[in-house]
Amino acid sequence: MADLPSTPLLDTVDTPADLRKLKPADLRQLADELRAETISAVGTTGGHLGSGLGVVELTTAIHYVFDTPRDRLIWDVGHQCYPHKILTGRRARIRTLRQGGGLSGFTKRSESEYDPFGAAHSSTSISAALGFAIANKLNDRPGMAIAVIGDGAMSAGMAYEAMNNAEAAGNRLVVILNDNDMSIAPPVGGLSAYLARTVSSSNYLGLRNFAKRAIRRISKRAANAAEKAEEFARGMATGGTLFEELGFYYVGPIDGHNLDHLIPVLENVRDSEHGPILVHVVTKKGKGYAPAEESDDKYHGVQKFDVITGTQDKAPPGPPSYQNVFGETLAKLAETDPRIVAITAAMPGGTGVDKFAQAHPARAFDVGIAEQHAVTFAAGLAAQGMRPFCAIYSTFLQRAYDQVVHDVAIQNLPVRFAIDRAGLVGADGATHAGSFDVTYLAALPNFVVMAPADEAELVHMTYTAAEHDSGPIALRYPRGNGVGIDLPEVPQRLAIGKGRIVREGKTVAILSLGTRLGEALKAADALEARGLSTTVADLRFAKPLDEALIRKLLTSHEVAVTVEEGAVGGLGAHVLTMASDQGLLDGGLKLRTMRLPDVFQDQDKPDKQYDEAGLNAEHIVDTVLKALRYNEAAAVDARA
Amino acid sequence: MADLPSTPLLDTVDTPADLRKLKPADLRQLADELRAETISAVGTTGGHLGSGLGVVELTTAIHYVFDTPRDRLIWDVGHQCYPHKILTGRRARIRTLRQGGGLSGFTKRSESEYDPFGAAHSSTSISAALGFAIANKLNDRPGMAIAVIGDGAMSAGMAYEAMNNAEAAGNRLVVILNDNDMSIAPPVGGLSAYLARTVSSSNYLGLRNFAKRAIRRISKRAANAAEKAEEFARGMATGGTLFEELGFYYVGPIDGHNLDHLIPVLENVRDSEHGPILVHVVTKKGKGYAPAEESDDKYHGVQKFDVITGTQDKAPPGPPSYQNVFGETLAKLAETDPRIVAITAAMPGGTGVDKFAQAHPARAFDVGIAEQHAVTFAAGLAAQGMRPFCAIYSTFLQRAYDQVVHDVAIQNLPVRFAIDRAGLVGADGATHAGSFDVTYLAALPNFVVMAPADEAELVHMTYTAAEHDSGPIALRYPRGNGVGIDLPEVPQRLAIGKGRIVREGKTVAILSLGTRLGEALKAADALEARGLSTTVADLRFAKPLDEALIRKLLTSHEVAVTVEEGAVGGLGAHVLTMASDQGLLDGGLKLRTMRLPDVFQDQDKPDKQYDEAGLNAEHIVDTVLKALRYNEAAAVDARA
Repeated sequence: MADLPSTPLLDTVDTPADLRKLKPADLRQLADELRAETISAVGTTGGHLGSGLGVVELTTAIHYVFDTPRDRLIWDVGHQCYPHKILTGRRARIRTLRQGGGLSGFTKRSESEYDPFGAAHSSTSISAALGFAIANKLNDRPGMAIAVIGDGAMSAGMAYEAMNNAEAAGNRLVVILNDNDMSIAPPVGGLSAYLARTVSSSNYLGLRNFAKRAIRRISKRAANAAEKAEEFARGMATGGTLFEELGFYYVGPIDGHNLDHLIPVLENVRDSEHGPILVHVVTKKGKGYAPAEESDDKYHGVQKFDVITGTQDKAPPGPPSYQNVFGETLAKLAETDPRIVAITAAMPGGTGVDKFAQAHPARAFDVGIAEQHAVTFAAGLAAQGMRPFCAIYSTFLQRAYDQVVHDVAIQNLPVRFAIDRAGLVGADGATHAGSFDVTYLAALPNFVVMAPADEAELVHMTYTAAEHDSGPIALRYPRGNGVGIDLPEVPQRLAIGKGRIVREGKTVAILSLGTRLGEALKAADALEARGLSTTVADLRFAKPLDEALIRKLLTSHEVAVTVEEGAVGGLGAHVLTMASDQGLLDGGLKLRTMRLPDVFQDQDKPDKQYDEAGLNAEHIVDTVLKALRYNEAAAVDARA
Repeated sequence: MADLPSTPLLDTVDTPADLRKLKPADLRQLADELRAETISAVGTTGGHLGSGLGVVELTTAIHYVFDTPRDRLIWDVGHQCYPHKILTGRRARIRTLRQGGGLSGFTKRSESEYDPFGAAHSSTSISAALGFAIANKLNDRPGMAIAVIGDGAMSAGMAYEAMNNAEAAGNRLVVILNDNDMSIAPPVGGLSAYLARTVSSSNYLGLRNFAKRAIRRISKRAANAAEKAEEFARGMATGGTLFEELGFYYVGPIDGHNLDHLIPVLENVRDSEHGPILVHVVTKKGKGYAPAEESDDKYHGVQKFDVITGTQDKAPPGPPSYQNVFGETLAKLAETDPRIVAITAAMPGGTGVDKFAQAHPARAFDVGIAEQHAVTFAAGLAAQGMRPFCAIYSTFLQRAYDQVVHDVAIQNLPVRFAIDRAGLVGADGATHAGSFDVTYLAALPNFVVMAPADEAELVHMTYTAAEHDSGPIALRYPRGNGVGIDLPEVPQRLAIGKGRIVREGKTVAILSLGTRLGEALKAADALEARGLSTTVADLRFAKPLDEALIRKLLTSHEVAVTVEEGAVGGLGAHVLTMASDQGLLDGGLKLRTMRLPDVFQDQDKPDKQYDEAGLNAEHIVDTVLKALRYNEAAAVDARA
């Protein structure tokens, strides 16, 4: 660990109450120390860096001006909240960020009263803030709500829905638009272009005195309400028509790193009789740390790194990640198939669509944080004869569930869903876990749902999906690296709804879906060592089920266990339902289903998460043995 | 049936190709005949009337000007498509609208090549149109895409996401904003106010010559591209800044009932080198039929009616609807509980929130077609100590699934979900069926999921939800009327996760969730008549399950059957999973699950839909008898 930075002033600040005792002139130093501490902490733990560095001054100014926690501060996404955590009583634990049992890398209600609303998915902050503001209004209680939302997050429809409803909150709601022209990937879309025009058309660069002018105009000392209304009237600000049309008072753009501007503007916003107000703040992601400033995307999320050199710990060499295998396979298939297109919702790197985009730029679409649009756009492309792949994380596909049902499944359109981050995700924790996709997709008529057991299977399934033109098809695979198996030269088209026997036995049958197959095979070894001959099947498909194979396995073994990395209602439930429908359980077969537990699992190292979930080889063995013991006990009962 | 209207010109038009043979001067008459035919047809069948009447001229003009079906015309929501169906080869079947085996009340791909993309949920059209346009662009094929979307549908985030991504389509995409200032309920939000300002600030009323001016300016005869660009530049139109900021060329507002304006404007839009273009058309819902014009909301969806008098068939008198029981119960509870608030997403009447709003206007929130915002807004209200009820149709709650997971369930916030239209919905068909809610909610940790068996239970469950402050809770109930049971004077707080025995027996156990209870009791009578003593339990809760009760029933009966009006993965799957976890199935118990079939069921009369689904009493009896016969057959096998 590098030496800790010297932070004499920050050491006096445990909570915002301490912060508010400082003189305005001290805030610059405080912000510098807060930045140094943030860099040092993330250097130790890894995590989101650039976004936190971009809001050091903003964080300081908000807590200085507003009466947190009574005033509710809601960070959109929450990955920029490390400086906020340092200022709100959590500094002592800041070097546990994203570790098992440590602080979350996002805001979290259970951590602190200064986190009134947790986040991790984008674009929820304005809706939530509106809830807080309206509750206070209905109860005639004091307290404002402040949402801080990035320009990228503004591309989501949800943010627009909230803005469209914000007027009722009046001056209890403040939205701070943190415009850093960069969410994770470069920004896309009309709104982004609009913001860029707004900033460039204002005399922002020479406008160090804009804030002063703004102060004069929205001064709380204005003689009367009418005068204040006048001050806020359209035309005062240098831009923001779009927001004003939706009912906001617009203030900005303001230099988000200049405390001399931020503090007085926020004070006036706080004291305004009018609202809701949108404050347009321009920041630089990674601000104040050269390696991060110079490479916005590389420093969005980082490994542990050396603070002096900026050198990140390299991930140990290993098999390729699932996301890259997907992206490269799709790019290759597209060389001979002009119908293939790829769509990502602001995650080109995370989904491997960047690999596809390098090879086929005209056929790659980054729609911004807009999963709903992504899916229906894909449905339109499919209806016009293309072969669209929507590459979306499992947890984010939840944003587009209705579009999956209404636009894709009901119309039986061949949209391909490449669902990354399916299952547990390690340090990102419960908000990013992809636990529910098999449950919510396999319930839909017309859907095909696959899960590869390894990266070679992922190649086959990507090809299978490309060739499947008769309806929607999904493949779901985990975060992280493959198992190290050789990738096939030529991808194979799999028969829809057909699994495979990986290992043959007689007494125990393990029916696996997805990448728990390795654990299933380990469990089979352990069972064999106990004299229990074990079959392992890779079902490949959660829907349609390989009914013939499952029937054969259930009727020819004493115990059968399904294993999947997903919530209740998925593979196990479908196997049970099929078996029950067909009367296969009536004869006394012992069928068990292993799945994710009915809790939202906290962040931890992946192996610990699997352990907690009870999805490792030893748990499979336990489940089998318990099922057999029950049988023995029942036999004893019967003899008695 | 009333006499059919005289439609000599319409009789010559079977498809748009015939329409295009007419002279412009004939179109007025054609539109009048089309309107008369639409009124006549809906008078016979019932259905959506006002929205179709509002777009008679627009429908005529679009098919006249654009080259449908090559040019893809996508009606948002689709409930305004009856005139479109009449003009596109479906007139002969128009009096089968919404009947079993008849035409859908919405656009539907399987019906016609003129329906390139089906709809029924709102706000999908721009995304889909963009898919068609981009596919044509990638393939360098001719063909435009035209989305027609109402101002109400524009309040949904999805429409904004699509607009934010539309620029790439260039002049292949046309969005026609059908501004009738009324979707189903009166419009809400900043966007709506914006549109009203745009229309009122233009000299629209005196502007019969606006269209002429527009024609002159966007004339296809413009000398060169630069000139055309100039014509489209901001400032030409009388409003539309908001759309222009998002990258559209804006044209409007235009009188949507004046064919002399519509035709030339659309021709110029069609031939423009620039785009995407947004055409702002102002229409009147119900146009041309006095009873519908005078009462927008009453004529949104209608029963059969007398064309001359406008008198609608009255629904036969009967028990109160579930929606009204909910709304009235909640209003009553709120009299003594100031924390209760109600939220609807543009469905105040359909959800019964109108009843609540009459009594407690300050605590009722109609957020527009914005389910995502509705749910997270409710989460914010709950986090600030309120008791919010989100009243949303099951099928529309799919729009907010991620918000339910990420903002409500993970944070364990006590948001109450009143889920209407759960299960089959009759004439609205597959797109409106609420089939999946139990599956997608019961998979979530922390959730309580209830379903009342009748309207008295609904009263109890509404109260139980209000009092449940420890986490999220949902109650799901069907479309239509209750069973006619007396409503309780005093609502009862139900024990969470506890079912009730409704009828005691010995051999067969029927475990019912929700309003199939009546059929379960009928089945019990029939089974009893065959000598099979039958228990019927109303489980009340899909989550948490009443494990003690279920264990008792499964271990003390020969056959157990679960019955629910929902897809696979719901109650039945949870009961099977629990029974399997606990080894209850190992002893040879016959457990069966009855649920909605794995198909999207088409529109029909409710009783026929239940019959098709196999969820009536006779099917329960069959299932039980088959399970027993299997047992007998197995016993025979064992003896052999």
